[in-house]
Amino acid sequence: MYLCTYEYRGKGTIGILNNDKLSIIPLENLINESINDMNDFISRYDDKIVLINNRIKKYNGETILLKDVKICSPIKHPKKDIICLGKNYEEHALEIKDYVKNKEELIPKYPIYFTKRADETIGPEDKILRHEKVTDGIDYEVELAVIIGKDGINIDAENVEEYIFGYTIVNDISARDIQKKHEQWFRGKSLQTFCPMGPYIVTKDEIPYPVALNISSKVNDEIRQSSNTKNMIFDISHIISELSQGIKLEAGDIIITGTPSGVGIGFNPPKYLKSGDKIDCTIEKIGTLTNYIQ
Amino acid sequence: MYLCTYEYRGKGTIGILNNDKLSIIPLENLINESINDMNDFISRYDDKIVLINNRIKKYNGETILLKDVKICSPIKHPKKDIICLGKNYEEHALEIKDYVKNKEELIPKYPIYFTKRADETIGPEDKILRHEKVTDGIDYEVELAVIIGKDGINIDAENVEEYIFGYTIVNDISARDIQKKHEQWFRGKSLQTFCPMGPYIVTKDEIPYPVALNISSKVNDEIRQSSNTKNMIFDISHIISELSQGIKLEAGDIIITGTPSGVGIGFNPPKYLKSGDKIDCTIEKIGTLTNYIQ
Repeated sequence: MYLCTYEYRGKGTIGILNNDKLSIIPLENLINESINDMNDFISRYDDKIVLINNRIKKYNGETILLKDVKICSPIKHPKKDIICLGKNYEEHALEIKDYVKNKEELIPKYPIYFTKRADETIGPEDKILRHEKVTDGIDYEVELAVIIGKDGINIDAENVEEYIFGYTIVNDISARDIQKKHEQWFRGKSLQTFCPMGPYIVTKDEIPYPVALNISSKVNDEIRQSSNTKNMIFDISHIISELSQGIKLEAGDIIITGTPSGVGIGFNPPKYLKSGDKIDCTIEKIGTLTNYIQ
Repeated sequence: MYLCTYEYRGKGTIGILNNDKLSIIPLENLINESINDMNDFISRYDDKIVLINNRIKKYNGETILLKDVKICSPIKHPKKDIICLGKNYEEHALEIKDYVKNKEELIPKYPIYFTKRADETIGPEDKILRHEKVTDGIDYEVELAVIIGKDGINIDAENVEEYIFGYTIVNDISARDIQKKHEQWFRGKSLQTFCPMGPYIVTKDEIPYPVALNISSKVNDEIRQSSNTKNMIFDISHIISELSQGIKLEAGDIIITGTPSGVGIGFNPPKYLKSGDKIDCTIEKIGTLTNYIQ
């Protein structure tokens, strides 16, 4: 199923994309309890996806036309900081070679994990703030986001899919100058509005595992990034299994899996984002996440 | 006031250290509403510290002897990942010079920010797990932790104290081998039980600002670290003001401000922690946080 958080007539709630792809079924019409938000839904319904899929098939109640709603970020308030992978596509690791200090290890031998804070993620069509007082190097990064469905620690690689709830798109907006200046990447990744997410969380039953999806981005309709998630250096099973060795992953945790080559800093001179730019991030089977620079 | 989270007769709640320093006043005897946990208290009582201090002075009700309770971590479940400072004391930045790739910049020109996950922090006397399957280099780091009292963004350096709720001690336990292997530090800092915290949150009215407190650690009663928080390269005003430029800090956020020289990796050969080791982290006016390696 394709889950979204949407606003309709001033009220925000969770919906499911109807089979016609043109309308939304309000979640509350499919279940008999009240749900606070997507995190609440994930932790209570991770094991009931089949049940809800069956109810969708038989559903003939009220639907709301997609054109009449605002689609928001599916998880507006992440429970914890978002876990990120650095340099997880080979061509991307190579395109930024002029900016790394350790030239001997351009392709990472081990995954690079860091985090991104978002007190609030933004949704499709929302504006990314320029933050011109603190940065002059805003960049885009299309990434496949994995949403954890249930708590787990010390997860074996072969059991990883069991812990996944679904997938969405994150544009991992980055202030390159801040990232470089502070050595570790947290601050340069965490400015407000730097986490566009959506449009849908696609539950894992919709996407064959291991995940091989075309992934691309455009800036003002010019293709910049184009790859496939099967080209990750460290795949999802490796990432989630390794991360969980000694660290408890929790339902609702968001892990973004790295970006392919073609980001702004990879050009000479760099093509950073400027006011008015439109960025489309597309992942096969999930959709397109479009945002604008303020 | 000195706030703690404690367990007494199987029930966990918040208490305040009595003036005699030998007993605890249950918080519920001082306020007329129920409080879920320390995060809830901070967000609702940040601006009422004076009021509660006055009630403590006049209090002559029930108290519980310190010796009869278990003091827990003051914030067992941090709302977000803990924000950390790297290399924020000059002598510490120098003692680890053999392990850094960028020899030209041993003393950081700008603060190094990263995060540490703790699904659960541990309290005084609790055991730190060895995680022998994933690390062979567990190290200690005594750090002053600053607890944010109210939401803020773009905070001017001169207004920083206004946003502080109080202070506590964190032992920023680190797996040095994992830290090095994964380049960014998140995973090596985030193993379960790697965040001992406490014993008290001391509200800001108890500690003159800027904060100049003796800070030290001992391993098996041998002094390892000894400095003063006034020796930070980037002080608390700088850190919180800079972090908040473009990033919203929230009530309950925890920022740990770096560690002085004398950590295990600074010795040749390194003195990593081993099973049965006792670590005492002491900060003037806050107390001592003691933990053991499993």
